[in-house]
Amino acid sequence: MRHLLGITHLQRADVEEILAVADSFAEVTRRSIPKVPALRGRTIVLGFFEDSTRTRVSFETAAKRLSADTVSFSSSGTSVSKGESLRDTALTLQAIGADCLVVRHASSGAPWQLARWLERTCVVNAGDGAHEHPTQALLDCWTLTRKLGPLDGMHLVIVGDVAHSRVARSNVAAFTLLGADVTVVAPRTLLAADIESWARAPGSVKTSDDLDRALASADAVYLLRMQLERQHEALVPSLREYTERFGLTRRRLDQLAERVAVLHPGPMNRGVEIAPEAADDPRSLILSQVEAGVNVRMAVLFLTLGGQHAVEGVAGE
Amino acid sequence: MRHLLGITHLQRADVEEILAVADSFAEVTRRSIPKVPALRGRTIVLGFFEDSTRTRVSFETAAKRLSADTVSFSSSGTSVSKGESLRDTALTLQAIGADCLVVRHASSGAPWQLARWLERTCVVNAGDGAHEHPTQALLDCWTLTRKLGPLDGMHLVIVGDVAHSRVARSNVAAFTLLGADVTVVAPRTLLAADIESWARAPGSVKTSDDLDRALASADAVYLLRMQLERQHEALVPSLREYTERFGLTRRRLDQLAERVAVLHPGPMNRGVEIAPEAADDPRSLILSQVEAGVNVRMAVLFLTLGGQHAVEGVAGE
Amino acid sequence: MRHLLGITHLQRADVEEILAVADSFAEVTRRSIPKVPALRGRTIVLGFFEDSTRTRVSFETAAKRLSADTVSFSSSGTSVSKGESLRDTALTLQAIGADCLVVRHASSGAPWQLARWLERTCVVNAGDGAHEHPTQALLDCWTLTRKLGPLDGMHLVIVGDVAHSRVARSNVAAFTLLGADVTVVAPRTLLAADIESWARAPGSVKTSDDLDRALASADAVYLLRMQLERQHEALVPSLREYTERFGLTRRRLDQLAERVAVLHPGPMNRGVEIAPEAADDPRSLILSQVEAGVNVRMAVLFLTLGGQHAVEGVAGE
Repeated sequence: MRHLLGITHLQRADVEEILAVADSFAEVTRRSIPKVPALRGRTIVLGFFEDSTRTRVSFETAAKRLSADTVSFSSSGTSVSKGESLRDTALTLQAIGADCLVVRHASSGAPWQLARWLERTCVVNAGDGAHEHPTQALLDCWTLTRKLGPLDGMHLVIVGDVAHSRVARSNVAAFTLLGADVTVVAPRTLLAADIESWARAPGSVKTSDDLDRALASADAVYLLRMQLERQHEALVPSLREYTERFGLTRRRLDQLAERVAVLHPGPMNRGVEIAPEAADDPRSLILSQVEAGVNVRMAVLFLTLGGQHAVEGVAGE
Repeated sequence: MRHLLGITHLQRADVEEILAVADSFAEVTRRSIPKVPALRGRTIVLGFFEDSTRTRVSFETAAKRLSADTVSFSSSGTSVSKGESLRDTALTLQAIGADCLVVRHASSGAPWQLARWLERTCVVNAGDGAHEHPTQALLDCWTLTRKLGPLDGMHLVIVGDVAHSRVARSNVAAFTLLGADVTVVAPRTLLAADIESWARAPGSVKTSDDLDRALASADAVYLLRMQLERQHEALVPSLREYTERFGLTRRRLDQLAERVAVLHPGPMNRGVEIAPEAADDPRSLILSQVEAGVNVRMAVLFLTLGGQHAVEGVAGE
Repeated sequence: MRHLLGITHLQRADVEEILAVADSFAEVTRRSIPKVPALRGRTIVLGFFEDSTRTRVSFETAAKRLSADTVSFSSSGTSVSKGESLRDTALTLQAIGADCLVVRHASSGAPWQLARWLERTCVVNAGDGAHEHPTQALLDCWTLTRKLGPLDGMHLVIVGDVAHSRVARSNVAAFTLLGADVTVVAPRTLLAADIESWARAPGSVKTSDDLDRALASADAVYLLRMQLERQHEALVPSLREYTERFGLTRRRLDQLAERVAVLHPGPMNRGVEIAPEAADDPRSLILSQVEAGVNVRMAVLFLTLGGQHAVEGVAGE
């Protein structure tokens, strides 16, 4: 695996390998000194052309636990603002010696372009436009598998602004690749037209606008963030009505079966897509997702950058 | 000591322990390789929700001398700007694996809230609103003690915008806890109403608006920064008049006894609260305060994060 | 060498020493773990008072390959914005324990001022106003020497906005110090009046406004960045006309001899000062310049900070 661009081009065995390596890093994380020398001397550039804290901090922590050196830059205060092309920026980072470029970018497809241009630098997609966010999907799979066991035949419900969500797209692909059935629940205005094509198994995705019905048979419910800062409110009648129809409200929480897991990629809008009580409920895996993120990102950096040298690194220290 | 939130809740023995540990780190700092493995593998998040360079750089240097990994974020470009609650941000950082959160925040009390929410992550207050700035007070105590010996019975004069100063509040508490008598000199408009309650010993704080009289019996004078960027100028007739009455001017410097130490937390407004000649005078401990900062912050990170493992770390390498 | 401020005060032997040390670091860079413990425990502050990504990332990578600790700050969000003087900021960083301050600043001469103020902290100029950018010139010399051999008697052509270019000034000094003849080609409005004084050997710099004639006898052509963000367009009739007369266009590239090297400090404005085909041509050394940057900056940090301890560090690990 030279790059991690999206879930779309992975096979089931790839995903399972990443999850298995993440298992071993979860063990490292529990050590009193949670650090291995696997990537010592490697330089990982965190290029966040779009704002993010949690994802950047998670990747940076993962890189440091692997003993890599990290260098961060954001789009403000960069050559980018001086009009340099993305290709020239990328080739410059490669020439400086970046072994891996973790990239978040507002343009869908940017990581694929970068991967075509770069010969020696691995590319890891940390979110591109409304397209993919593969490490989010992988950490969600890891979290769900730990909780529910294998996902084959599980019924997973994804709710919210699917049309603008890279998380939804990557998760539909990942969940169906692992054998789950997915129901996507959203108002029509927030539903992507091509959603069936996201599934990795025929007929494994259904759409609905009836959340209560979907929840009745769900094994897990995944709330998407309502991206208020993107002013998609115009696409819903009102936030209050959105919450009433598509939020995991207190009422829905009370009716939810005990076994149903609740997930959210964060940051949450408490009171909009998820009630505070739901976020803090024992069924909520939201903080487990965050924890999983570091282990899964360690696995991704390790597998893209690593090889034999890295494998020895995990064993030792 | 699991957190360092403020001076208010510390006992004299706590302060003395921190100062003693800072002594041993001052010795580390003088080594040719000023680094110990005490906190190797620990992750320290520097969460500056409010701007600061000197404090952040000081903490980051302290953390790196202890071999900890550091991850920085500021409020711009964060989940914060996407409307996430402070609690969710904090729980996320804990789930990522932050062993310590060094936090600066515009809201008074934010570090206390954080400490209530966080079970595994230490909180170190790097300045909260106009409330507390405990590491500043500790480094000031360390600097003064090195210069003057024990502070019992010393007369320390604090001058300036006390009402809006977390430095003043923490220092009144720390100085009086260590047995000093404090005179706070300020225009009435910049004097806090509850200042007597800041003292840790009854009757150990006096207020005055006569700087010359206070200086006549002072062992040290501590100038507060006039926070021009906060537009408190409205509270004083004019900056020129403020300087004349409450600044450590050239004239006052000439009259100041040789033994009197001059302190300032920085950044200075030369020519406003302190004359350039005073800042650069041999009596000035201003750069000693900055130096002390790294050693004291090493001590604080060590004591909150450390334990036995850390103690061994100091000895060895 | 305690500081690296500019090329102007260096002797030929100084430059040759730096280039020779860069050779040895180029060997380190090729190792599977490109890291030496030469500067372990040293703190390098990257103080970018003016935006830059490529230079900051290059210095940060260089510092980390030498095992130094790095702390970054930019002008926004600093004491600077609170009105602190540059001298007080510098003395503060020294007191915190910065062993080296890598500084980019909009004011010409700022690094020289810093060097006068700082007794224990090395200063490395990473670009000051329109004045000097010595590490850029050194990496250009290293790149050219690797390609062309010794520069004595070589004819190097520098083209573009010379008047506002620290790169041009440092390179004229460096190239002529190493024995090259330089022709500076620019419209009169973008030509510095004192350009002859930049040369380190009498008569070694000529000016011209005829690029084609200059290229006919060139061994290398160095395109300067047209700093569009500085709105110097007013100084040229139009960008299109500028490109026509002073750009390395497709037409000029086709006429360029095979042996002529093409250089650019980046970031490029493709289609303005350099045609895309020229940037990507086999004669282009532009990415080699970027690669050279890390090795040359390792050499500079090593020589300013290092001494015997550092030399041992290179050998071992």
